[in-house]
Amino acid sequence: MKIKAGIIGATGYAGAELVRILLTHPEAEIAAISSVSFEGKKLSEVYPSYKELCDMECGTQDEVVEKSDVIFAALPHGLSQELAAQCDKAGKAFIDLGADFRLESEEEYRQWYGCEFLDHDLHKRAVYGLPELFRENIQGKRIIANPGCYTTGAPLALAPAVKAGLVSTEGIIVDSKSGVTGAGRKPSQGNHYPELNEGFHAYKVANHRHTPEIEQTLSKLSGKKVTITFVPHLLPVNRGIISTCYARINDGVRFEQIREEYEKFYKNEFFVRVLPDGANADIHNIKYSNFCDISLHHDKRTNTLVAISAIDNMVKGAAGQAIQNMNIIFGLDEKTGLVIVPPAF
Amino acid sequence: MKIKAGIIGATGYAGAELVRILLTHPEAEIAAISSVSFEGKKLSEVYPSYKELCDMECGTQDEVVEKSDVIFAALPHGLSQELAAQCDKAGKAFIDLGADFRLESEEEYRQWYGCEFLDHDLHKRAVYGLPELFRENIQGKRIIANPGCYTTGAPLALAPAVKAGLVSTEGIIVDSKSGVTGAGRKPSQGNHYPELNEGFHAYKVANHRHTPEIEQTLSKLSGKKVTITFVPHLLPVNRGIISTCYARINDGVRFEQIREEYEKFYKNEFFVRVLPDGANADIHNIKYSNFCDISLHHDKRTNTLVAISAIDNMVKGAAGQAIQNMNIIFGLDEKTGLVIVPPAF
Amino acid sequence: MKIKAGIIGATGYAGAELVRILLTHPEAEIAAISSVSFEGKKLSEVYPSYKELCDMECGTQDEVVEKSDVIFAALPHGLSQELAAQCDKAGKAFIDLGADFRLESEEEYRQWYGCEFLDHDLHKRAVYGLPELFRENIQGKRIIANPGCYTTGAPLALAPAVKAGLVSTEGIIVDSKSGVTGAGRKPSQGNHYPELNEGFHAYKVANHRHTPEIEQTLSKLSGKKVTITFVPHLLPVNRGIISTCYARINDGVRFEQIREEYEKFYKNEFFVRVLPDGANADIHNIKYSNFCDISLHHDKRTNTLVAISAIDNMVKGAAGQAIQNMNIIFGLDEKTGLVIVPPAF
Amino acid sequence: MKIKAGIIGATGYAGAELVRILLTHPEAEIAAISSVSFEGKKLSEVYPSYKELCDMECGTQDEVVEKSDVIFAALPHGLSQELAAQCDKAGKAFIDLGADFRLESEEEYRQWYGCEFLDHDLHKRAVYGLPELFRENIQGKRIIANPGCYTTGAPLALAPAVKAGLVSTEGIIVDSKSGVTGAGRKPSQGNHYPELNEGFHAYKVANHRHTPEIEQTLSKLSGKKVTITFVPHLLPVNRGIISTCYARINDGVRFEQIREEYEKFYKNEFFVRVLPDGANADIHNIKYSNFCDISLHHDKRTNTLVAISAIDNMVKGAAGQAIQNMNIIFGLDEKTGLVIVPPAF
Repeated sequence: MKIKAGIIGATGYAGAELVRILLTHPEAEIAAISSVSFEGKKLSEVYPSYKELCDMECGTQDEVVEKSDVIFAALPHGLSQELAAQCDKAGKAFIDLGADFRLESEEEYRQWYGCEFLDHDLHKRAVYGLPELFRENIQGKRIIANPGCYTTGAPLALAPAVKAGLVSTEGIIVDSKSGVTGAGRKPSQGNHYPELNEGFHAYKVANHRHTPEIEQTLSKLSGKKVTITFVPHLLPVNRGIISTCYARINDGVRFEQIREEYEKFYKNEFFVRVLPDGANADIHNIKYSNFCDISLHHDKRTNTLVAISAIDNMVKGAAGQAIQNMNIIFGLDEKTGLVIVPPAF
Repeated sequence: MKIKAGIIGATGYAGAELVRILLTHPEAEIAAISSVSFEGKKLSEVYPSYKELCDMECGTQDEVVEKSDVIFAALPHGLSQELAAQCDKAGKAFIDLGADFRLESEEEYRQWYGCEFLDHDLHKRAVYGLPELFRENIQGKRIIANPGCYTTGAPLALAPAVKAGLVSTEGIIVDSKSGVTGAGRKPSQGNHYPELNEGFHAYKVANHRHTPEIEQTLSKLSGKKVTITFVPHLLPVNRGIISTCYARINDGVRFEQIREEYEKFYKNEFFVRVLPDGANADIHNIKYSNFCDISLHHDKRTNTLVAISAIDNMVKGAAGQAIQNMNIIFGLDEKTGLVIVPPAF
Repeated sequence: MKIKAGIIGATGYAGAELVRILLTHPEAEIAAISSVSFEGKKLSEVYPSYKELCDMECGTQDEVVEKSDVIFAALPHGLSQELAAQCDKAGKAFIDLGADFRLESEEEYRQWYGCEFLDHDLHKRAVYGLPELFRENIQGKRIIANPGCYTTGAPLALAPAVKAGLVSTEGIIVDSKSGVTGAGRKPSQGNHYPELNEGFHAYKVANHRHTPEIEQTLSKLSGKKVTITFVPHLLPVNRGIISTCYARINDGVRFEQIREEYEKFYKNEFFVRVLPDGANADIHNIKYSNFCDISLHHDKRTNTLVAISAIDNMVKGAAGQAIQNMNIIFGLDEKTGLVIVPPAF
Repeated sequence: MKIKAGIIGATGYAGAELVRILLTHPEAEIAAISSVSFEGKKLSEVYPSYKELCDMECGTQDEVVEKSDVIFAALPHGLSQELAAQCDKAGKAFIDLGADFRLESEEEYRQWYGCEFLDHDLHKRAVYGLPELFRENIQGKRIIANPGCYTTGAPLALAPAVKAGLVSTEGIIVDSKSGVTGAGRKPSQGNHYPELNEGFHAYKVANHRHTPEIEQTLSKLSGKKVTITFVPHLLPVNRGIISTCYARINDGVRFEQIREEYEKFYKNEFFVRVLPDGANADIHNIKYSNFCDISLHHDKRTNTLVAISAIDNMVKGAAGQAIQNMNIIFGLDEKTGLVIVPPAF
C-alpha cells in the first residue's frame, strides 16, 4: 500500500513542486492538499499545467492531517509549531519545509525570526533533514526540519573540506545567486517581470535569515563555532542556486587532497555529483532535478578554495529533499521517485 | 524484456530529448547511441546534465542498428532514406524524426527539400506518425515518419473543425511562435544570446518547409486540397510552440457546436487537453511534457474561429511523439513513459 | 525659452518613459510631475535609474497644469476628460496617452470602455495623433489623443496598402505580440516573473479594446468601414510589439506594386523604416527608439500580403509618439529629441 | 569643428557601442570605420538597428587612421601595439579598448597574455584610462589604455576604502557577474541561446586575465602590492556587471567612516552614484548608460565591508569610458555626449 502524503500550503511554489514530484512517485500518493488562499478550488485551476493530472480540491489543514500518513507543510514561519504538535499527537510523520524547527538555538530563532519555541520537547525530537550530512539522525524520526534552499547548497559545497579540517573556518564567504521562485508566488514590485528581467542585484546583504542555519551546519561539521559572511543575489531565471564559497586552505594542505576528500565524502551519494577538473557547476545542468553539482577550484595565488554548488532551489532546496526525507523515514530507497533527469536544455 | 532503443544523432537536441525520456521509460532501455560529431565521446560530456545518468559513449550508426529493436533517427533531411532501408532489411523498427518520409508526394518533397524518393516501396510502407489523427494507420507499421514540430501543433488545433467541415478550408492562417531549440544545437549569429534575447521576429515567412506537411494533414482530414498561409516566428524562450490558427466559421455553424466537436474529438486523447472557455493555451503549462493544450476562441464580429495550440516543440513536437509512436507499434499503452508532469513554473 | 512640459501619472511606465526622453530634449524641460500613488516622493525613489537625473518630487495634478505649457497625461481611461477641460480652460496644450479621446464614436467608446463623452465639443476639437497618417490634422491643435501601442504598429503596417486599395479590407487579420511593459507597472500574478518567463500566450482574443481603434484608422484610410480580427499575445520581453498583419491582395495587383507604394508612402517619414526584401522586422532593432520597422512579405500560394511592423510599445507606441506630437504642435522639427539610436544589442 | 573619430573593429560589440554613442555626441562625428570580417559592408547590414543612422561602409584600418583625429581600437589583444605606433607617428590620438597597454609590467603581460611589449617607449607614454581614479594622468596624453569591464567595476567599488587604508588589502575577494555581451559577438556553444538561457555558472575561476589589472589599480591606490581572489560568472542578461567585493575592515575603523569616505571620494564624479543605505546596486538601473552605481554594506558579525558596483559592461566598461577619455584628452566637458538616461525598465 502506498504512503498517503498530504500537503499543507499546496498552492505555494514549494507545495506545487511537491505535487509535481509525488504525482509520479511509485510508493506514495497524494491523499489530500490544503491551501488557505484557494480553499475549495482545484489545484489545476491555480496551476493549469496540472490539468487532468491533479484536479484535486484544496481542503482544510485538518482534513490533510486526518487523511495522510505523512504531512508536508510549506507555510510561512511561525505556523508550523502547532501543526507539528497536531501531527505528532495523531501519530503522523511531519516534514516541515518552513523554518520553525531548523535552528536548534531558541535564541537564534528569536533573534532572526522573532518567535519562541512553543514546545521544547518537540524541538528536541525534531531533526534537521539534510540527508547527505545527517542521514543517520533522520532515520526513525517523525519530525523533520527540511533545510532552506541556500542552506542546502552552501553546506554541501563546503562540508567535506570543513569536516576534514582542510580549510580555515574563519573568513568563509558564501556568495549565492538564486532564481526568482525562491521569493515565492506572491507578486511584488521586485518580482514584476519588467523590473527583474535584465536586472541583477544583491539583497539582504549580510542579514539573510539563512545565515545562522548555514553556520549551524558548518559548526556541527567542524566542531567549533563558525561565522560566515553570506550575500544572496537575485538571478533573472526561474530556478536554481549557485553558491560560490570561498575558504582559505590550511597550511600544508594540497588542493589535490581536498578534491580526493570530496570524492570520498560523496562517493555513495547519488544526488551529489562532484564535477571533474575544469568543469563549472551550472544551474542549467540540475534544473528540475534533485541533484547538487559541485565544482572545485584552486586560487593558487592566494591559496583559496573556491567550491561552487548548483542546486534547484525548489527541488534539492525544497520539495525534492523533503521527499528524500520521506523516503528515509519510511524505509524506502532514498532515490525512489527522485530519479528526475535534468533536461539538457 | 525491455525494448532495446537506439538513437542515431543522439547529440542533437531531439536526440538528447529522446535520451531524457527513455531513461525513465519502464519498458524500454537505451541500447546504443551514435553521433557523427561526437563519436567516441560520452553523451554526458556533451550534455553535463546527464552525468551519471547516461554516460554511454557515442558509437557508429551501424552499431546502433545492430544493437536495437527500434531505431530513432534525428538527422538532417536526406540522410534517413538509406538508413530506413538498412533498418528494414535488418528487421528493425525505424522512427524518423527527420523529414524524409513525411510528405507523401514526391513532387512536394522535391520542391521543398530538393531531394528524390530513393525507394518508392519504402515510402509506401512508411506511415505518418501523428497518433491522435492517424492512430489506426500506425499500428503494425515499422517505418514511422514522425511529424515536425509546427506540423503537430497546427493540425491538432484545427483538426476537429476541419474534419467536421465546420470551418472554411480557404483562407486558413497559421501564425506560429516557436522556442529557440527548434533551430537546433548549432550556434549561429541569429541564435547568439545577445542578439536573440529581448528580440522577436518572423522568419521564412510563407515559405517554411512545414507548410506542405500541415496542408497534407489538413487535406486528408477535410477530403479536399487545403492551402494555408503559414508564418513562423522565433520566441526568446527555450521550448514551446504556440500556433494561433484562424479559420472562417461556415454559415449556420454555431461556435458552441465547434467546442462540442473538439471535446468529443479529443475525449479519449490523454495528451490533448481542450481548455475551458476563457483560458488561453500557454507554453508555460506544457513545457517538458507530451501535452498539447488547445484553447478555442470566437471572433463574433467576423465569425472567425481562433484555435490556439501549445506544445513543447521538443516533446510532442519531436521526441515525446516519437516515443508515443514506439509505444503504439510495440503494443504498449500509449502513455507508457510519457506521463511527464509539466512543471508549474 | 524651452517648452515647459508637465507629466500627470509620471510614475507609471508611460510617464517614466516620457521623463527619460524629455530629459535630453533640447527644446523642452520637465516643469512638474504628479502621481497619485507616490505624491511627495522623488521620482528617483520610484525609479532609481533616474537618480541625480530626475530627483524632482511628485506633486499634484493642479500643480502640473499650472506650471506647464503642455501636459502629458498617462492615466487610466475615464480620468482624462475633465483634465483635458481643465487644461483647455487654462490655455495649455494637452496630450493624452490614455484612451478617452481616441475613439470618435461615442457609441464605440461606451461599448468598449463603458464611459460617456462628457463634453462633445472637446471631443470634436481633439485630434488623433498618429503623425505619419494624420499629420496635417495635428498641426495647430491643442488636444491630442495619442494612439495606443497596438493601434500604432498595426495601422502603420497596413496603411499604404489599405489607403491605395491594393488589398481587400475584408478578412484582415492582425496577430500581435507585445512585451510585458504594455501591461503596466502594477504587479499581478500574470506578470509575476516565474509565471511569465519562458511562457507565451494570447490574451483578450478578439476582444481587446484596441480593436475598434485600429478599425477606425483603417476605415479612414480606406474610406469604408473595416472590421478586423485582432489577437494580441504576451511576449516574455520588456519592450516591443510585432504586429503580423494578413491581407488578401486584390486581383490584378502585383506584390512589387505594393512594395513601391510603401516606399513612396513612407519616403519622408524619418521614423518609419521600410526594410529591404528578405529582412524581417524585429523588436530587437527598434528597442528604446521611436522607429517603426516594417517588413513586407508575399505569400504567393494564397496571394496574401504579410506586412509586419515592429515598434517599441513604450516609445513609438506611447511616450515617443507623444513627444513627436508635442514637437508638431509647438512647430518644432518632428525629430527633435527623438533621434534615439536603437542599441545594436 | 567636430572631432573626427575613427573606429577600428567597428562590427564587434564594443565597436558597435562606440557608434551608438558617437552618433549623438555633439562635438564628435564618425569619420571612418573598419572591420576585417565585414570590409565593404555597411554597418547597418551587420546591425540593422542602425539603418538610416549609420549606413557607413566598413573600410580598412589605414583609411580610418588617415581620416580621423582620434582612433578607437576594439581589437583582440596583440593587435594594438603596431596600430598605436602607426597612429602615434601620424600624430593621431589612440584609445585602445583592447588589453595591450593596460598592464604596466611586461612580465605580467607575458604571463597572462603570452605577448611581449614591442616598443617600451610607447608603453611608457600610454596611460591607463580610468578617469575617476587617474584623471590627472590622462589629461594631455595621446595613447590611452581603456580599462576592461571587470577592471572598471571592481576598482571603483573598492577604491575609496583601499586608498584611505580603511580595509585590509589582504584577502580581498571580488565575485563578479557579467552579462553575455562581455564574451563578444562570435557565436559559440556556451553563448548559444538555449544553453545559456535559464543557466548561470562561474568561468575562468581564479585565472581570468582581468585579475592582474584589478590588482595593478588597487596596488597603485594602496601603495602596496595587492593580490585578490577574482571569480567571474556569466549572467543570462545582455548587459551589465555586478561586482560584489569583500574586504575586512581594519581595526578601529567604523563603517560610517567608510561611507563618508566614499561620498567624499566620489562627490564630484558625475558617473559614480553612491547609493543610500538600504539600496542595492542593480544592473537594471545603469543599463545603456555610463554610470557606475555603488552600494555599501556592513557585515557586522564579521566586520567585513561588502561594496557592490554595477556598471554596463559595454558603456562604462568599454565604449562609454573610451569616449569619456576622448572628452578628457580633447579638453571637453567629460560628460559631453554621455548624459544617457538609463531606462527605468
